[in-house]
Amino acid sequence: MNRYAVLGTGALGGFYGSRLQKAGLEVHFLLHSDYEHVRQYGLRVISPDGDFLLPQVNAYGNVEQMPPCDVVLVALKTTQNHLLDQLLPPLLNPDSIVILMQNGLGAEPTIAKIARHVAGGLCFICAHKIGPGVIQHIDYKAIALGTYLEGYQPAGVSPQLAAVAQDFQKAGIPTELSPDLLLTRWQKLVWNIPFNGLSVVLNATTAQMMADPGLVELIRQIMQEVARAAAGCDRTIPPSYLEERLAHTKNMRPYLTSMKLDYDHHRPLELETIFHNPIQMARRNRVATPLTEMLYQQLQFLDRQNQI
Amino acid sequence: MNRYAVLGTGALGGFYGSRLQKAGLEVHFLLHSDYEHVRQYGLRVISPDGDFLLPQVNAYGNVEQMPPCDVVLVALKTTQNHLLDQLLPPLLNPDSIVILMQNGLGAEPTIAKIARHVAGGLCFICAHKIGPGVIQHIDYKAIALGTYLEGYQPAGVSPQLAAVAQDFQKAGIPTELSPDLLLTRWQKLVWNIPFNGLSVVLNATTAQMMADPGLVELIRQIMQEVARAAAGCDRTIPPSYLEERLAHTKNMRPYLTSMKLDYDHHRPLELETIFHNPIQMARRNRVATPLTEMLYQQLQFLDRQNQI
Repeated sequence: MNRYAVLGTGALGGFYGSRLQKAGLEVHFLLHSDYEHVRQYGLRVISPDGDFLLPQVNAYGNVEQMPPCDVVLVALKTTQNHLLDQLLPPLLNPDSIVILMQNGLGAEPTIAKIARHVAGGLCFICAHKIGPGVIQHIDYKAIALGTYLEGYQPAGVSPQLAAVAQDFQKAGIPTELSPDLLLTRWQKLVWNIPFNGLSVVLNATTAQMMADPGLVELIRQIMQEVARAAAGCDRTIPPSYLEERLAHTKNMRPYLTSMKLDYDHHRPLELETIFHNPIQMARRNRVATPLTEMLYQQLQFLDRQNQI
Repeated sequence: MNRYAVLGTGALGGFYGSRLQKAGLEVHFLLHSDYEHVRQYGLRVISPDGDFLLPQVNAYGNVEQMPPCDVVLVALKTTQNHLLDQLLPPLLNPDSIVILMQNGLGAEPTIAKIARHVAGGLCFICAHKIGPGVIQHIDYKAIALGTYLEGYQPAGVSPQLAAVAQDFQKAGIPTELSPDLLLTRWQKLVWNIPFNGLSVVLNATTAQMMADPGLVELIRQIMQEVARAAAGCDRTIPPSYLEERLAHTKNMRPYLTSMKLDYDHHRPLELETIFHNPIQMARRNRVATPLTEMLYQQLQFLDRQNQI
């Protein structure tokens, strides 16, 4: 049976880690500010699936005390990835797999220098941490997992990742195994680039944006540009996919994106993986992305002003 | 001697009209909310050139009581131009000239259906109305005047407009006579499109924007796009002009653009003349303006949210 480590016990790491533990798996949580509280009182999940408390969890304030694990779930913000140099090695044995449960593109190659087995995990979930050790799950929870191979070449499905998917499914998490991580990451960017970006620049919820037909047209244009960037990497995202995402978003409850929440809390924005790396990849393939680049420039300005 | 009408006695109309009257010209002011106050107490200008009060001015609450004038200075926001159908005819004799002291492009053709002689006036001034009949002049004051001919063809300099320029110069206003109104309007748009637009979208002063090298690069790219749109109309704006405008803006005092002030006061934004018309003109000439269009789409969204 896989032993799990969760790095970053916020909304994502707290939710998925708790569900895995509740399903009977052995989970070890790395915490930072909430360490003392969670060690004493455990983790609580408030959810439309049913609330639950885990009164006892394996909580750690640093990685040196954690045992090596078969699966390391990285649920830090990508703006914290420079810490992984220090955090990962104590947790790894030669067969461990590190799964980056993060948005955007281009974080895996760096981690592949630290760990032999690396995968990407894309989380389709709306959840917030509302207090120390307390996660409010609002909607959705599915994940997609894909093995990373050098240069994001399609990797198929490994038995190792299939076993992880079984654990997640045992925990009630709809889990998709992607044979092509790069395609899956570009598909998620089709949504993240316009909605995360514009929610910050325009100070708006998804509902406000979707209620404005003129703005929906801009969102569609940005989505089309991201799809062209994906095509430049030989990954096809058909127009019907974009329309599905728009229709789906229209039916979502009013929702502040993760980037908007980061902005409102004066946390640094995840611009490198969601904007910089995709733009660079498009540029290497000679695909022009003027709208995405302008949005990125606007966000960099706002991010810098926000950190002053 | 020219007799002047000023339509819209806000910062611009109040400043230029007062200076003309102070220089001995006959000026008739149309007022709206400040009518009673100005009729009783006159107009006051606070200025680095020296403060002054005009205790008595020809103030009117409606155009029917105003005499026909040789020169009608339109200093309304372009968002009010639909009123000119009603406001202009009582003021005009066959030789009257209507001068649109307004930003952007594309307002003159409509006015040319009402008045035989139409010109554009571009105001390079920083001034605010700070109370009823009180104008705070902050910096700059120059204007550029250019005759409008059908289709914005270069019109040279008419004796009529040269006489107006003399009046302004007598009033201490540096006045340039432009033989090519369209070129002059595109030159001003090189500044107005990026700075007015981004100041609203990014909630920033000119100083904050100029202090951020990444954002200056975006501003430069937008300026270059506007210069390409001008080139599509056979109007050349060299790169050195853009760099001069940037250098000049860097030396300006921190400054909220007129569009940002409109936004902060929940007034409708002047998007039609500053964004819509220039984009349409570029499109007719098959010049792509993706950055300007995206900025326009963002501003439309913010403008609509701002009016709710």
